[in-house]
Amino acid sequence: MTNNKNIIIFDTTLRDGEQSPGASMNTAEKIQIAQQLEKLRVDVIEAGFAAASPGDFDAIYQIAKTIKNSKICSLARAVDNDIKAAGEAIAAANAKRIHTFIATSPIHMQYKLKMSPDEVIKRAVNAVQYAKTFVDDVEFSLEDAGRSELPFMKEITQAVIEAGASTINLPDTVGYRLPQEIRYMVEQMVGFIDSIGSNAIVSLHNHNDLGLGVANTLAGIEAGARQVECTINGLGERAGNAAMEEIVMTLKTRQDLFPGITTNINTKEIYQASRMVANITGIEPQPNKAIVGKNAFAHESGIHQDGVLKHQETYEIMKPEDIGIEKNNSIVLGKHSGRAAFKDKLGQLGFADLASDELNAAFERFKLLCDKKKEIMDDDVRMIVTDEKLNHNKIYEITAVQISDCSRGVPSAVVCIKHKDKEIIEAGIGDGTMDAIFKTIDRITGYNGTLLDYNVKAVSEGKDALAKVTCKVTFNDDNPPMIGHGLNLDTMVASARAYVGALNSYLSMKDMLNKNNPHQI
Amino acid sequence: MTNNKNIIIFDTTLRDGEQSPGASMNTAEKIQIAQQLEKLRVDVIEAGFAAASPGDFDAIYQIAKTIKNSKICSLARAVDNDIKAAGEAIAAANAKRIHTFIATSPIHMQYKLKMSPDEVIKRAVNAVQYAKTFVDDVEFSLEDAGRSELPFMKEITQAVIEAGASTINLPDTVGYRLPQEIRYMVEQMVGFIDSIGSNAIVSLHNHNDLGLGVANTLAGIEAGARQVECTINGLGERAGNAAMEEIVMTLKTRQDLFPGITTNINTKEIYQASRMVANITGIEPQPNKAIVGKNAFAHESGIHQDGVLKHQETYEIMKPEDIGIEKNNSIVLGKHSGRAAFKDKLGQLGFADLASDELNAAFERFKLLCDKKKEIMDDDVRMIVTDEKLNHNKIYEITAVQISDCSRGVPSAVVCIKHKDKEIIEAGIGDGTMDAIFKTIDRITGYNGTLLDYNVKAVSEGKDALAKVTCKVTFNDDNPPMIGHGLNLDTMVASARAYVGALNSYLSMKDMLNKNNPHQI
Repeated sequence: MTNNKNIIIFDTTLRDGEQSPGASMNTAEKIQIAQQLEKLRVDVIEAGFAAASPGDFDAIYQIAKTIKNSKICSLARAVDNDIKAAGEAIAAANAKRIHTFIATSPIHMQYKLKMSPDEVIKRAVNAVQYAKTFVDDVEFSLEDAGRSELPFMKEITQAVIEAGASTINLPDTVGYRLPQEIRYMVEQMVGFIDSIGSNAIVSLHNHNDLGLGVANTLAGIEAGARQVECTINGLGERAGNAAMEEIVMTLKTRQDLFPGITTNINTKEIYQASRMVANITGIEPQPNKAIVGKNAFAHESGIHQDGVLKHQETYEIMKPEDIGIEKNNSIVLGKHSGRAAFKDKLGQLGFADLASDELNAAFERFKLLCDKKKEIMDDDVRMIVTDEKLNHNKIYEITAVQISDCSRGVPSAVVCIKHKDKEIIEAGIGDGTMDAIFKTIDRITGYNGTLLDYNVKAVSEGKDALAKVTCKVTFNDDNPPMIGHGLNLDTMVASARAYVGALNSYLSMKDMLNKNNPHQI
Repeated sequence: MTNNKNIIIFDTTLRDGEQSPGASMNTAEKIQIAQQLEKLRVDVIEAGFAAASPGDFDAIYQIAKTIKNSKICSLARAVDNDIKAAGEAIAAANAKRIHTFIATSPIHMQYKLKMSPDEVIKRAVNAVQYAKTFVDDVEFSLEDAGRSELPFMKEITQAVIEAGASTINLPDTVGYRLPQEIRYMVEQMVGFIDSIGSNAIVSLHNHNDLGLGVANTLAGIEAGARQVECTINGLGERAGNAAMEEIVMTLKTRQDLFPGITTNINTKEIYQASRMVANITGIEPQPNKAIVGKNAFAHESGIHQDGVLKHQETYEIMKPEDIGIEKNNSIVLGKHSGRAAFKDKLGQLGFADLASDELNAAFERFKLLCDKKKEIMDDDVRMIVTDEKLNHNKIYEITAVQISDCSRGVPSAVVCIKHKDKEIIEAGIGDGTMDAIFKTIDRITGYNGTLLDYNVKAVSEGKDALAKVTCKVTFNDDNPPMIGHGLNLDTMVASARAYVGALNSYLSMKDMLNKNNPHQI
């Protein structure tokens, strides 16, 4: 155990990350992220919780078919139906794992499970044994390990290892622990597993409620943990999970304190992964987020500050290039750039694998943008492509928006939407221009959306910057909220596109569920 | 030293926090934040860097006159002019401190200062002695202590303590260190200071480049540091500083691991402070930010998730009320609420100290909002008041906006602005509706703004939510960017107000500087 110094990076952006309020993703979005995680060389991708919903099942199933180089994992409670769903969802994967769990803390066993410790052990052993009928690789989590008692943790660990589990995960489910506590717990558990002659790996899954998720994970690695569960941008329930980029870049930057410890991560794909997760979920890292925040390398970004320019090494412990940030996010392309130059730029930005219809659509939008905006930045190109990938499902498509508003009068909108080769035009009024647009779209489509969140960001600088709109909408209330994205020079048009994008996601999810399970919706 | 278990909270939101790209604040905004820091019972407020600019000097000067219960501090390089400016800026304060610094790491001394270690010590001693002619309380920082050598750190520390410094701050300027290193450094320095018979306090100032700012600060407290420098929301250069809310809430939640350690912070003011800093700087904590992120207490916020509802204590280690989040951000007031109910609600939300003209203006806007929006939430009220406080300086005032836009045509805007009791109306076109509005405003005012950042957020849920617009604009290019805020049901009007708000800030800053220093602009 102690000879093995490679840390297994287990990414749970698509499972725990997706459980963040507002981060729900559809299958196409999850596949896009899984492909980026594969490029990052993540060892294990937790693609979802197969039994949670048909949508979750489908996403895991598609990811298992698509990804070749990372192991695909599904979460499952320690009950047969969950494990069966997990096993079936990942069946097609090259390499696969089932991750099953049960709570082991007194408070959870008593109040949530209403089970005795012996019953919990029995359930855990059965779950691991059943999971082994589907896969060789089974991970077992002691939910709320952070508040569990060591003797019981050892007892259940021995039982599940004997049943066939090869990874023992010790989650700090409520994010309550400090580094010295995690260090002690891992030392104890690694020592115990050694003492029973097992090679099982100790894994950590630290939540961030006190802001200590990454520090706890690093302390655990020092104490012998060899798998870490983490997410891109630290996404996850409540205050999220330990951020992958912070763990990986600390291990790399402070190699002197972690002698011989390695990961397989290709750090040059970190920035692209961070941008993709932020764009898809609409959850933007704060500018002062370590490693991937907009200001993390601000002394490199051309922003002029009052301070003096200093010798580079005096203030720099990492290079932006290490995580894949291009040196200059400057003028990259213009009116006269051809398809080849555009394609070349896409390659540099990590979009070499674009399908040819996606490339065509993106190039067309790029040329339209060139007519209106003189300087096209890397970020503009990145957003065009992402938007094209996310909005390829055009059940309804905005073709024109016209608005009229006067702060002393009543805002109105005319919206033109293409649906099944027909153009429908309608007008409507609202309390503001956005309200008028959204209500007019509802009138055209016949769906009544409730806007839960709305956000506009300028993609780059200048009054003529592209506006990126993200909105979160529920349709027919009992359904989970859908995220829509829109990108345009005009905020109005971007907003209309984002709203319709959420509707398209809702409709294709409904369609997919109807196919899989005609009685459910 | 070891008997003293109260941790001095030194807040540098207004100094290091303001150095975040995009976080510049004007004097009115800084005073508002300083007042909230006083309510939080911060021990020391670092109000700025007096010598940096006349604007900084003025803000510190005004804060020193306004704040009664926190000590006011100004930063100063170890040069006479800086120290003189600091001393003069804080002269009126009830309690005051000068914080002077010089770099002590080999790399900084060699490349940045181009000074020998002996010269550095001499400069430091002179600075402390000169600072003592203005104030009793002098803090000395060993810049880049994280990469300095212990023998030299001890040497310079002894010299500045003999010269009169009573706080020795050890900044990890580049955010490079891990907790065990900070622990060792603090143990060494606390032991050394004890050994020379001094009562000087060891202070920490940890940057967050590896995501470890808070963990490092906690390790330092365990090792005997008795002052911590931190910021609200972890604002600060690059990846920011250790976040005050995370340090304070960890000490409180994990009192078992920090026996007897206390702070003077009134944690119930944390949430209000976080919202205020986010609103003023436009730098929003990510939803998964520990303690103050939108999702940090998501299981409390009424968001329905797929998971089951569980026994509260199984998942909760802190209560939202501990940091001052009201239990229900629900319908609070409506059309029929009178001035008394409105004032009462303001009290609950922490705005009891509103001036009567501010109260009147806010109540008027509240009534207007009631006509259009059926449910008025706590967040709506909070934003109305904040907006009123931030936009009280109405050199130019938007009175009406009219737009017309068609995605197949040319967007146009008509804007009506009140200036010195005159109404000016103009029209203009643009590449999008916002562009048209901003260009029309430029045409009316004669100032040419460059938009550096633009952001819209919905304040609450629903298509008729209030839109909160933040924009960052530079006028006449050579000037620092100004932040403007606008709040309206209509995004158009909110955007126009935000843009004009930035212009008003620019003009009042220019005006103030002209008065203070007629030759400078």
